[in-house]
Amino acid sequence: VIHRLAVVGVGLLGGSVAKAARARGIAREILGVGRDLARLAPALRDGVLDRATTDLREGVAGADVVVLGTPVLTLARLLEDVWAAAPDHAVITDVGSTKLAIVEAAAALARRRPLQFVGSHPMAGSEQSGYAVARTDLFEGATVVVTPTDLTSPPAAKAVTGFWESLGARVVTLDPAGHDRAVAMISHLPHLVAYALVDAVGRDMPSALELVARGFKDTTRIAASDPRVWQEIFLANRPALRGALAGFRRSLADLEALVESGDAGGLVDTLGQIRDRREALR
Amino acid sequence: VIHRLAVVGVGLLGGSVAKAARARGIAREILGVGRDLARLAPALRDGVLDRATTDLREGVAGADVVVLGTPVLTLARLLEDVWAAAPDHAVITDVGSTKLAIVEAAAALARRRPLQFVGSHPMAGSEQSGYAVARTDLFEGATVVVTPTDLTSPPAAKAVTGFWESLGARVVTLDPAGHDRAVAMISHLPHLVAYALVDAVGRDMPSALELVARGFKDTTRIAASDPRVWQEIFLANRPALRGALAGFRRSLADLEALVESGDAGGLVDTLGQIRDRREALR
Repeated sequence: VIHRLAVVGVGLLGGSVAKAARARGIAREILGVGRDLARLAPALRDGVLDRATTDLREGVAGADVVVLGTPVLTLARLLEDVWAAAPDHAVITDVGSTKLAIVEAAAALARRRPLQFVGSHPMAGSEQSGYAVARTDLFEGATVVVTPTDLTSPPAAKAVTGFWESLGARVVTLDPAGHDRAVAMISHLPHLVAYALVDAVGRDMPSALELVARGFKDTTRIAASDPRVWQEIFLANRPALRGALAGFRRSLADLEALVESGDAGGLVDTLGQIRDRREALR
Repeated sequence: VIHRLAVVGVGLLGGSVAKAARARGIAREILGVGRDLARLAPALRDGVLDRATTDLREGVAGADVVVLGTPVLTLARLLEDVWAAAPDHAVITDVGSTKLAIVEAAAALARRRPLQFVGSHPMAGSEQSGYAVARTDLFEGATVVVTPTDLTSPPAAKAVTGFWESLGARVVTLDPAGHDRAVAMISHLPHLVAYALVDAVGRDMPSALELVARGFKDTTRIAASDPRVWQEIFLANRPALRGALAGFRRSLADLEALVESGDAGGLVDTLGQIRDRREALR
């Protein structure tokens, strides 16, 4: 059992970590760190947090497990304070959408002080954000990618894996660069594409937006995501996003060429193969 | 009230027309036409159809209202038989996803015999198909685009508009070419993009499909649609789809350029404007 769990950034993901940890009794004490005490008040009232502070160093000082729940670019800034204040035995993880930069930043800090950081990415985000939408069951059945490296101690990797499993998640282990390429394909690219779809209709034929049905709404739901969060993710994962976009453009061009060729049989076959792949998703 | 409603093609849309018409009591008799009597049996058993036939001419012979519920390319083939057999006072409509071709085909036939055809497109499709997924409430609150032209008699336009409204739909009137451009943007383009997203991940990094969460699934749900239906739609609406793709590529390139420029402020602003547009959808 964890003596003290510190959750830094008590929003959708951090708040759900705290809620799930409380509901499942996996931490004796849960402490929340935020920029604004008023925004931590609901979690205190809910009994999800035992204590709240705006002082990051104070918040992580006695923690066995530190979960950084802030957006990706904020993470790097916080890491130095976490490193200065967390106890020697602490295991630190995060919930950021890209992993290479944060893992490298942690590795650089670990050369000065050998704290254990293991990157995590719960594939359980939402276009909504904030503690108000945090859920006790957010991680139940969700996939969490954990990204240990050669520098990670096996007990730390095991602790972080066990932590997410204890919240009900299925853990998949990837190296940080492989994670970033994978999420560029399955998350960052679809977000950019959804934004582009809404933008294209809005620019070329805004009146058509009066007619949209479930298909357009589902396809572009993630274009309602927080612009600040996604600006950070797109910038943080630029090289992998560039590669994902190239693959997407090739696939789109191949499909358009098939449409333009008028090859009905070839088009049915190709769409059928893609449909089968889509239907095979777990 | 309609004396006899003939529904040609009793699948998701045609079946839902029959179910809604029955439930709302807007037709004394509902007759279904299909290629295979066995596939019409469930609708007869449900009491949704009073009669069923595989003979199109027989089916439309005594009908006041004929609804063509078959895929777009099949429609054109059926139209000649409908024209030969429907009574003089019949009003004919369809549920096809493109309108210019069918409306022009009907106009050509009307030069020989002045029957009234008014194109319709209920924006209430699904990636599923067949009578088994037809629903009494499919059109409740849904948008149906109706596409009269200069050749349409006002009473026929009014009859078709009234028909859909009596099933609970909101009717929007557009000219056929404007309809085809609008649905190319909000339906056909998103479908092609969804197919391309699944294809790109499948070709470049199939292992990433193990990690997908709700974002990818929602964005690509429509890639599980029937390949035969979509092959027909893509081919039938090629010119408008080409234009929609050009606009989408421009929007995607603009977003990528903003990401590559590293202009965080500009990126937040642009994503924020798109998010607002997405959130304004009814």
